[in-house]
Amino acid sequence: MEPIELQGDERLDYLLAENLKIIQSPSVFSFSLDAVLLARFAYMPIRQGKIVDLCSGNGAIPLFLSARTSAEITAIELQEQLADMATRSISYNNLDRQITMLCDDVIGIAAKIGYDKYDVVTCNPPYFKANELSETNKKEPLTIARHEVKLNLDQAIRSASELLKQGGKAAFVHRPGRLLDIVTSMRANRLEPKRIRFVYPKEGKEANMLLIEGTKDGKPDLKVLPPLYVYKNDGTYTEEVRTLLYGTEA
Amino acid sequence: MEPIELQGDERLDYLLAENLKIIQSPSVFSFSLDAVLLARFAYMPIRQGKIVDLCSGNGAIPLFLSARTSAEITAIELQEQLADMATRSISYNNLDRQITMLCDDVIGIAAKIGYDKYDVVTCNPPYFKANELSETNKKEPLTIARHEVKLNLDQAIRSASELLKQGGKAAFVHRPGRLLDIVTSMRANRLEPKRIRFVYPKEGKEANMLLIEGTKDGKPDLKVLPPLYVYKNDGTYTEEVRTLLYGTEA
Repeated sequence: MEPIELQGDERLDYLLAENLKIIQSPSVFSFSLDAVLLARFAYMPIRQGKIVDLCSGNGAIPLFLSARTSAEITAIELQEQLADMATRSISYNNLDRQITMLCDDVIGIAAKIGYDKYDVVTCNPPYFKANELSETNKKEPLTIARHEVKLNLDQAIRSASELLKQGGKAAFVHRPGRLLDIVTSMRANRLEPKRIRFVYPKEGKEANMLLIEGTKDGKPDLKVLPPLYVYKNDGTYTEEVRTLLYGTEA
Repeated sequence: MEPIELQGDERLDYLLAENLKIIQSPSVFSFSLDAVLLARFAYMPIRQGKIVDLCSGNGAIPLFLSARTSAEITAIELQEQLADMATRSISYNNLDRQITMLCDDVIGIAAKIGYDKYDVVTCNPPYFKANELSETNKKEPLTIARHEVKLNLDQAIRSASELLKQGGKAAFVHRPGRLLDIVTSMRANRLEPKRIRFVYPKEGKEANMLLIEGTKDGKPDLKVLPPLYVYKNDGTYTEEVRTLLYGTEA
């Protein structure tokens, strides 16, 4: 096991279900439930194949995926500080042979790492429009991760499509309010939506997250999967989410 | 109460929750749960306004709506036999002053009854593509009600939009597999999707129905409502559906 070097307010958190550790920083970036759910939702070949994760942040999704597949994973993150956290986490978990972290722009990435070459692309993109941000805010790492400052949804979807082979699958997590934008952009970029799952904070509430997967040049045949609830009425995690987070239902 | 004239295999069924009766015919047309759910899902002004129901069949939706609003309801049904059943049911329930049944084509209906004039349009359109039907089948009343023989989804949505005032609402029920077609056509016809509710046969199953409402020239702001389950695990109706069907939870 590599020695760990933590910087600033970084801390080493456990990914219990995967038996891995990850470097997080409250002021710079911490992964959220969205990443956990996307990593679980996405179709994943077990042994072979090539996978790309776009907008990787501190590498949570590639780390989660490494527990589901032995395929090669390439992770793309624009922000140096986050890519560096991810690289150190990958080394700490001895996953350097499986996961390659690239600090690069998602826009145009296929020209650098290959068009029509990958089996699966995952992406937890920035959720929020950038319109009302101040110029100062637009430089903050958390803002860049959360707002469409450097990358908008359409650009993320285009890159995913460029990377994928015919028949390859792209999975995204986003807000339900952007459902129409996502499906419109996916179809415009040859990604036919095939599976959608809505995530509800608890029973009786509106959905606050959506998971969607499309197939490059796939035939129209959309399935709406059973809803996923995060919390029970007593405020504790549902069994399904507990299993994803902790690897146990008890 | 008018005397009732039943023809062929027609029977008089109860709409328990609404305390109304409706003429049905197993060989010609019987309403389904889809109509019940749409009539409940659609936004409805309580007292005033003008409502149109497209593809009315035997008039189930206008009858259901009459229990929720005292606004005028115009119902459009292409098939004479079905429109006749609906007209007799409307009279039987003494609703002739509130509900006007027109036997006419949904295509181009706004040119006859008015553009930009209505507050709400509901529509339970034919669900299935007509491609693989035989010429004989295409003449069957049940086939015409269920398949896109005389009216396709895009035509239904266009008519709904033409009828509506700015700010008016159109509500549709359809299959989840057509979600992308619906939202694409709604946006192309100035109906911005605002509320979606997916209907699941029971917990753990994929959705088999979707309810969607859009506002004419509305701003993008889509909400995904809590899921609606039809059956409990023991095969009986859930409380929500039981209330819609029977008007009581007991």
